[in-house]
Amino acid sequence: MKKIIFTLFVLSSAVTLHAQTNPEITLLPVPKSISLQGGTFTLKSDFKVSVKANQTDSILYQAVNRAFQTLNRRTNLYFEQQRITYKDSSDNSTFIIRVKQKASVTLNQDESYQLKITGKDISLNAVTTTGALRGLETFLQLLQSNASGFSLPQLTIEDAPRFVWRGLMIDVARHFIPLDVVKRNIDAMAAVKMNILHLHLSDDEGFRVESKIFPELHKKGSYGEYYTQAQIRELVAYARQRGIIVVPEFDMPGHTTGFLAAYPQLASAPGPYEPGPRFKRSGKKLGLMDIMTLIQTTPTPAFDPSKESTYTFLDKFIGEMANLFPAPYLHIGADENNGVSWKNNPEIVAFMKKNKLEDTHALQAYFVKRVSQILQKHHKQTAGWEELLSKDLSKNVIVQVWSDSSYLRKAIKQGNPVIISKGFYLDLFMPASVHYNNGLIPSSAPSNILGGEAALWAEAVDKDNMETRAWPRTAAIAERLWSPSSVKDSEDLYLRLFSVSNQLDEIGLQHRSNYERGLRRLTGGEDIIPLKTLTDVLTPIKGYKKLFAKMTAPLSHTYQTAPLTRVSDIVFVDSEIKRSFRRTIGNYLNHKEANALQILQEQLAQWKENYPHLEALINRHAMGNEVAVHAKNLYEAAQIGLEILAKLKTNETLSPEWIKQKQEALNSLKKADGEVELAIIPEIEALLNQKLAPEPLDYPLF
Amino acid sequence: MKKIIFTLFVLSSAVTLHAQTNPEITLLPVPKSISLQGGTFTLKSDFKVSVKANQTDSILYQAVNRAFQTLNRRTNLYFEQQRITYKDSSDNSTFIIRVKQKASVTLNQDESYQLKITGKDISLNAVTTTGALRGLETFLQLLQSNASGFSLPQLTIEDAPRFVWRGLMIDVARHFIPLDVVKRNIDAMAAVKMNILHLHLSDDEGFRVESKIFPELHKKGSYGEYYTQAQIRELVAYARQRGIIVVPEFDMPGHTTGFLAAYPQLASAPGPYEPGPRFKRSGKKLGLMDIMTLIQTTPTPAFDPSKESTYTFLDKFIGEMANLFPAPYLHIGADENNGVSWKNNPEIVAFMKKNKLEDTHALQAYFVKRVSQILQKHHKQTAGWEELLSKDLSKNVIVQVWSDSSYLRKAIKQGNPVIISKGFYLDLFMPASVHYNNGLIPSSAPSNILGGEAALWAEAVDKDNMETRAWPRTAAIAERLWSPSSVKDSEDLYLRLFSVSNQLDEIGLQHRSNYERGLRRLTGGEDIIPLKTLTDVLTPIKGYKKLFAKMTAPLSHTYQTAPLTRVSDIVFVDSEIKRSFRRTIGNYLNHKEANALQILQEQLAQWKENYPHLEALINRHAMGNEVAVHAKNLYEAAQIGLEILAKLKTNETLSPEWIKQKQEALNSLKKADGEVELAIIPEIEALLNQKLAPEPLDYPLF
Repeated sequence: MKKIIFTLFVLSSAVTLHAQTNPEITLLPVPKSISLQGGTFTLKSDFKVSVKANQTDSILYQAVNRAFQTLNRRTNLYFEQQRITYKDSSDNSTFIIRVKQKASVTLNQDESYQLKITGKDISLNAVTTTGALRGLETFLQLLQSNASGFSLPQLTIEDAPRFVWRGLMIDVARHFIPLDVVKRNIDAMAAVKMNILHLHLSDDEGFRVESKIFPELHKKGSYGEYYTQAQIRELVAYARQRGIIVVPEFDMPGHTTGFLAAYPQLASAPGPYEPGPRFKRSGKKLGLMDIMTLIQTTPTPAFDPSKESTYTFLDKFIGEMANLFPAPYLHIGADENNGVSWKNNPEIVAFMKKNKLEDTHALQAYFVKRVSQILQKHHKQTAGWEELLSKDLSKNVIVQVWSDSSYLRKAIKQGNPVIISKGFYLDLFMPASVHYNNGLIPSSAPSNILGGEAALWAEAVDKDNMETRAWPRTAAIAERLWSPSSVKDSEDLYLRLFSVSNQLDEIGLQHRSNYERGLRRLTGGEDIIPLKTLTDVLTPIKGYKKLFAKMTAPLSHTYQTAPLTRVSDIVFVDSEIKRSFRRTIGNYLNHKEANALQILQEQLAQWKENYPHLEALINRHAMGNEVAVHAKNLYEAAQIGLEILAKLKTNETLSPEWIKQKQEALNSLKKADGEVELAIIPEIEALLNQKLAPEPLDYPLF
Repeated sequence: MKKIIFTLFVLSSAVTLHAQTNPEITLLPVPKSISLQGGTFTLKSDFKVSVKANQTDSILYQAVNRAFQTLNRRTNLYFEQQRITYKDSSDNSTFIIRVKQKASVTLNQDESYQLKITGKDISLNAVTTTGALRGLETFLQLLQSNASGFSLPQLTIEDAPRFVWRGLMIDVARHFIPLDVVKRNIDAMAAVKMNILHLHLSDDEGFRVESKIFPELHKKGSYGEYYTQAQIRELVAYARQRGIIVVPEFDMPGHTTGFLAAYPQLASAPGPYEPGPRFKRSGKKLGLMDIMTLIQTTPTPAFDPSKESTYTFLDKFIGEMANLFPAPYLHIGADENNGVSWKNNPEIVAFMKKNKLEDTHALQAYFVKRVSQILQKHHKQTAGWEELLSKDLSKNVIVQVWSDSSYLRKAIKQGNPVIISKGFYLDLFMPASVHYNNGLIPSSAPSNILGGEAALWAEAVDKDNMETRAWPRTAAIAERLWSPSSVKDSEDLYLRLFSVSNQLDEIGLQHRSNYERGLRRLTGGEDIIPLKTLTDVLTPIKGYKKLFAKMTAPLSHTYQTAPLTRVSDIVFVDSEIKRSFRRTIGNYLNHKEANALQILQEQLAQWKENYPHLEALINRHAMGNEVAVHAKNLYEAAQIGLEILAKLKTNETLSPEWIKQKQEALNSLKKADGEVELAIIPEIEALLNQKLAPEPLDYPLF
């Protein structure tokens, strides 16, 4: 297979790069400004680093050593320098790092840096250690290699983020994500300059933090799967060392079965409660409207906001957690409480009447206000999902918009700080380009938009597929939030995205390994190549379809213990092969590139010739029924592609009738099966129509 | 590529299996007795588990749930049962587990179990939970699949271990191995029924445990890389849940730079001390004798055994660690103290004279005695490497034989319990068959041989290659220590070893992923197949050659920060492709198997045809010089193989002259380069000589 050459077309910089004349640069996120001088700096084993900073700045020294070792390992140069300490401050080193201030754990710190690479030395200057951390990641992304060795391009980069809140939310409640996996996500976030790790720590399915004051919470709320306080401290320190703030979320008043399993007396309806999905599915086939009705009318577990004991409990609980998580922000969820449990409870109804709370929305606003006051007492700024917005909401409460964009307008109008997650939901299986083109991020943003957050809900995500679900797609969101708004070309993004994917793989992310491990599980350890040739171009059905299929499937599919090891659970959302195939088709159709036709032919032939091998594999394994339809479809799509190429080669005109017939055939190959679809049909259609149609900016959710 | 069919030829059982007539069974370790009834038990989504045991036995319930979920994930059956609790005790379940006693953390507990599978149900009976854990692993290894689904063979297994000490030692001092990696090793150990994890926690290169009493130890002895006490507790609990005892080792009186960096006043020679390799290499080229002389004559850091303050310190320190590690054993190392530092210190010499200690051996015996008394006070049985053996050694001290087999004889004679590690050193890059045929494990062992331990020293091992170094080879040692002595056929072992390797990969071990990740690092993310086709048949040079090369290389190669990312650092010690190729050659030469010649031809052609692709890759990357020689050699070896096959096909007699010429060519291809060698030359030679020579039972260390 051809290696794709990744190139950065720098859009908002002093100099525009062209692949033909310049070294390949694959920075992601694209910096604010970059100026290339031509020529390179050559790395040798005498490469030596100096740091000029506060000698007690352990975060800086650790980060410099990490970057140095990544470079050492990637180049195999066996650097003579072993470790960089405060004693290494010579003016004659090849790489000098200058930092004025230590890092802090707040949003409002200077993250800018300047990186300058000449033929003989490199300098990185930053006001804060956090800025230096961002600059070190840029430095590592600039490494280039060829047969004669390793180098960096001569250039000057001036960089700073566009938004101060560049987050990833991981739902560790629906499926528990162990510490090492979360740490790897922190590594990945740091590589693309994100700064907020939002952990969704409690929900109906589980409560995931050890509480010393209320140990029943983790004992009864977690099935034994929770973070100890020691682990939380370890995680917070690990994140801090990488310039990342951990923001905990304890969802309330709804999504609280995790709490209520331990303390049913806090609930609006009598217990007992057991952690699990909020809707007990009947196993009946449900349509979209049935599901919507279910969501609106089912009494769902919720705190009782009318009892003082609820607030007494929360004061103690939040006090403990406020101490455990040093970030000045705490997220209280406040989403998707349909109020039915409240309306069903006469005491709560009486409380509403007495307090002139006209509906359950007003009651929720009351609850949010009380809880925000508790947070304030514990020196935390409140954050919550959009439903916590009300007219009287305190101006310093952060509103996270996830579903209804009218909340964005309202929050901006009310002057509340906003985080945008609508359009950044990773669990909707949307291609990176969709998130990248998120229309809610305006080209010139009002000042109270703090930034955004990728969100990974975990109904169909567990420790083994979460990295494949999150990466590299999250990097597209990271760029949207860091780079200037003028950086917006999806094709260019994709050129760099898979390069970042390699970089993350190299530092230990498991997105690729877990995918391949999942394939080996399906083949019982047999050679996966025939299966992988197919699954490399299979992508999960987009939107809520997979989740709803899970909800309406037999009961056992909805449990947290349901295995997530099917093809639809393990394949990537963005197919790298599809992107490469598409680019080649573009090169052929739009640029008449000489060897494009040959490359296309080889790819199509590979798919076609793979079929008998895959068929044999299918006939030996139980997983066969999962991929049999698509195996045949890929064969047929490749066959159609080859037929088109044969005609094009002989300059035969494609008759409208022939085109129509093939189009119909392709339409039937588009159909989803086993919750995945063949990703390369639009490209075969492009060949058929001799026109590469633009990709949708978004896809339906239902 | 052909899939290898793994088959167990059960050697010590009621029924001998033949691949032709029986389902494939790939148990490793082979059980004590197995009786096949024919037919299978079919797994369906209504598979249901009951447990009849003490309802507070959380280790058992957790293990049963883990096994159940592994099965759920592997089969994708979406079992209707979600979690198994004490409420699940029906007599009508498809799988019933009966246990009488909870697990303990001592050696002397019953690990036996009986597993019975009929066409309609399964039962697992064990005296202790630990026995049940072993039986659950057997149960998982029995899973079979084909296109129609999943099943288990009908059989009865009676099983119990041969030795009570079946250990793996990991040196986490020379390179720190993070918690998640150690946990994965515990998973792997549990899968092959090992029960002792021996952690080498301190050495010259580092001190790796947080001490609350002496915090300078981890602060000055670890470069920030150590386990917190919370992590140790987590690890010990994790191991215990899997029937594994964690035995900590704090090496003393030598190998103590990690201690002395914090407390130089405990040393025999003045400080300061800094953690690092014990010999400061000059970078000069050293021969074997030079190195031996260096080892014997260099003053090496050691505790001062003449000062009471040393014992006062050790009493407090061991008291703390004895509390942290609940196992009743504690390992004090006591190896490789050459006594030079002692002889150089007049006060120590005076102490020896005063106490009538005639040489440094006697002084070491005195030190060991004092420390053992301290251990006894803290309720720990002492273990140590062979050098701690002396005439007056207390009879309950465990002697671990690693180098000189005369210590084995002496220890047996003195009646001390013995652990055998000589022949089980994983860092010597020996094939699994060498460890499997370890001559020191007698066919009928004296009762004071407790068992053995695989040992992974970490001069050239770090978190990223340790799993590739340890697995699957350690499984061969696990079988040697568990199975009856009559189970000893290496070819049969290899048939099952790679099946276990797949099983370990499936549960999350990184031995394969890290190898492939390492290759991707070398190709900068480019398709690794051309490189992997070569590296799949490259193995590290055997014995101490690689370590000594490191010792005599330029200074920077000996540091702990030296990268371990070269081809020689990442390839497996046992080549799966070599084993498969060798087996096919055996099938051809010994059994005249019909399609063997065709398979050989395809394999040789694959190697030959790979060369241009690999050459192109080499020409684009700095790693090229690491593999260029072997790339060409594999091409030439394949070419010779194909020439032989061509002659065999036409029944042409190979003339002695032609054979001689080709043998000379092959001899030149055998040469190591870049610390790796081509593993398949003996097989090409077998083709040439029409005779498969037996493999060496051992290889030279130097």
